[in-house]
Amino acid sequence: MAGDSPLQLRIFDLNCWAIRYLSKRRQERVQLIGDKLRWEGFDLALLQEVWSEQDYSDLKVKLAGCYPFSHYFRSGVIGSGLCIFSRFPILDTLLYQYSLNGYPYMLQHGDWFCGKSVGLVPAWGSWLLCPPCLQLHAEYCREKDAYLPHRLVQAWELAQFIRHTSKAADVVLLGGDLNMHPEDVGIRLLRGWTGLQDAFAEATRFEGCEDGCTLVPNNCFTVKAELLPFPLGIRIDYILYKAISSFTVKCEELKTTKGTAPGLDIPLSDHEAVMATLHIQRQRQAVGASLSTTEPRLVDVVTEARTEVEVGLQAARRQRYSTGRMAVLALLLLLLQAAAALGTLVGLGAGQPFPKLSFSLLAFLAIGILLLATGLHIFHTMEVKMLQGTEEQMRMVLRVLQERP
Amino acid sequence: MAGDSPLQLRIFDLNCWAIRYLSKRRQERVQLIGDKLRWEGFDLALLQEVWSEQDYSDLKVKLAGCYPFSHYFRSGVIGSGLCIFSRFPILDTLLYQYSLNGYPYMLQHGDWFCGKSVGLVPAWGSWLLCPPCLQLHAEYCREKDAYLPHRLVQAWELAQFIRHTSKAADVVLLGGDLNMHPEDVGIRLLRGWTGLQDAFAEATRFEGCEDGCTLVPNNCFTVKAELLPFPLGIRIDYILYKAISSFTVKCEELKTTKGTAPGLDIPLSDHEAVMATLHIQRQRQAVGASLSTTEPRLVDVVTEARTEVEVGLQAARRQRYSTGRMAVLALLLLLLQAAAALGTLVGLGAGQPFPKLSFSLLAFLAIGILLLATGLHIFHTMEVKMLQGTEEQMRMVLRVLQERP
Repeated sequence: MAGDSPLQLRIFDLNCWAIRYLSKRRQERVQLIGDKLRWEGFDLALLQEVWSEQDYSDLKVKLAGCYPFSHYFRSGVIGSGLCIFSRFPILDTLLYQYSLNGYPYMLQHGDWFCGKSVGLVPAWGSWLLCPPCLQLHAEYCREKDAYLPHRLVQAWELAQFIRHTSKAADVVLLGGDLNMHPEDVGIRLLRGWTGLQDAFAEATRFEGCEDGCTLVPNNCFTVKAELLPFPLGIRIDYILYKAISSFTVKCEELKTTKGTAPGLDIPLSDHEAVMATLHIQRQRQAVGASLSTTEPRLVDVVTEARTEVEVGLQAARRQRYSTGRMAVLALLLLLLQAAAALGTLVGLGAGQPFPKLSFSLLAFLAIGILLLATGLHIFHTMEVKMLQGTEEQMRMVLRVLQERP
Repeated sequence: MAGDSPLQLRIFDLNCWAIRYLSKRRQERVQLIGDKLRWEGFDLALLQEVWSEQDYSDLKVKLAGCYPFSHYFRSGVIGSGLCIFSRFPILDTLLYQYSLNGYPYMLQHGDWFCGKSVGLVPAWGSWLLCPPCLQLHAEYCREKDAYLPHRLVQAWELAQFIRHTSKAADVVLLGGDLNMHPEDVGIRLLRGWTGLQDAFAEATRFEGCEDGCTLVPNNCFTVKAELLPFPLGIRIDYILYKAISSFTVKCEELKTTKGTAPGLDIPLSDHEAVMATLHIQRQRQAVGASLSTTEPRLVDVVTEARTEVEVGLQAARRQRYSTGRMAVLALLLLLLQAAAALGTLVGLGAGQPFPKLSFSLLAFLAIGILLLATGLHIFHTMEVKMLQGTEEQMRMVLRVLQERP
């Protein structure tokens, strides 16, 4: 940081829900988002789910005057959907793709194809800020959440990524759709292990949806059925921050949009935008690490997360086993058919015992199952490896935490 | 670092070539590697291609006395093959998987299945050392190297990973099989962009194979045909290092094994081991970043790498296009067949124009091609995205480098 004068930093975060052909009134909304960003003149805008590069390019052209610097993070099949617009120069970027991100065969959920990742923009402006924007795996069913272990692996990898890349940073900023409720184990793990603070909880002034919710029933694009158990809505979009060295960060104000703004006929997105005003000031004395005071609680959180990862590991092992067994069965069937066909060819059998058509249909079916089951087996083997790796890292961290005086 | 007393650090690095069922005399060699590590008592051993977890566990048991701390990095289908044995505590680890790593359908090369990655072990012992061990994509044909863009993306991601994770480190150590010759653009890019120094080039004393080669013709396990253009062998295994803050690192001695050791009847691996003795000392004054002096050359290297990545991008785009076209053609054929079958069913056609067997065989063939081409199309789309992303990052870095006074 150049001098001792404090800095006010205004941050905008929004899951834009801009999926080509699928999101309702996408182009109109992207226009509105661009207008809002231009009018309000934030310092930094972190956008998620901008899945069309054309939309990004349109925004870039529109915002060139007030946000001269921007970056679009590319990954996966469709893209990461992450982009960042900034008033200060972006000098470098780094993309970290999570090792687990759902299943390629769950086409209706689509997370696998997006290559969900965290984008890091270090050395933003003349200071060392790390504003990564990100999105974690979506939750499709809260009661029976098959993706919980994947989301926990992502939360863990995100926390590790932040810890290891922010060591020389003055301030760490994180904004994005974490797809987790504030009390969920993943959020507690992320916050506990990085020391990040929740702008909503720390804000001096708040203005917006009740409880800071970002997915609310009175937004015309949200799926009402999903929000039935939560009459006020849910809070899954966050701005988190942390001062690392001799700085303090305070959240002066936090705002959210509240569905459709006056004068407009649609909201910006199915999510509400989160807007924070942060006050950053250099301190005379270096601030000590805040991890130690919360360590006993951190041990509990890591233990809880580890248990969930172990549950996921067992499920992945079962799936690896059953897909492997299916592949072996299909292979056996094929071998049996090959033997029968050979037998007929060399004249061992009494003529042609099976009708040709059903025989070849069965063979094709067996080949299809063999290929599919082998592919799935490979996929679940990778899943097992990654879950094992995370579980082991968590165990190592627990040991270190518990051994500390 | 605790005090001002200098530290001597002895590092061992070896690509162990321990692939179950494929590597010759694997178990015997793993025993030998364990014996060597136990006799010589290094401070740190970085091993690659330990692809069987059983081998790792055996080594762990054997080395428990002299290397009480160890870690095995899990990733991909088979694993990363990376493990580390250390005399000092390992407090935390981080694994970064490269976004590109060959093609899943090149079964004979197998890189895709390994999930090649870099393992980071920060805060090793009571200091902040970052000894990642790693392996990059193999080179299968030097004249027509189809994997060069992938290896360059990996070298770039590795350099970025090191830069961003080592900002608060005192010393950075890197050991591994980089699968690149010392003058290759990938090595120049990695060294130029991180400021890492090559232990072989800097060593005060050297003892080992001529030119520090680590893949030599007189090792009985190397493929002689591949080394025909290089009578002395090639150097692709490295120990690189860098002092970041107020430290200096000097390489006092570098050694390599020379094929079969006296008294033994086989070498440790098809690669030679690299052993470095580093001298680390705290300086009174902080050492300035060494990047600035080499910047003009760095611009050339990044430009060269960017050109290669662009060539790869064009190839990936062509493959994406041709697999997409094949998928569309297969879909058209299927639709045509469906129309013909429907026509026959509703009695439009004059009887059954095709024999049933060939008709269904053709349909299955079309389905097979459709699935395969779609899978490949998705894969090449991801490849295009990642190459584009890297190309863009390189462009950003070039702009920053050129704009600097």
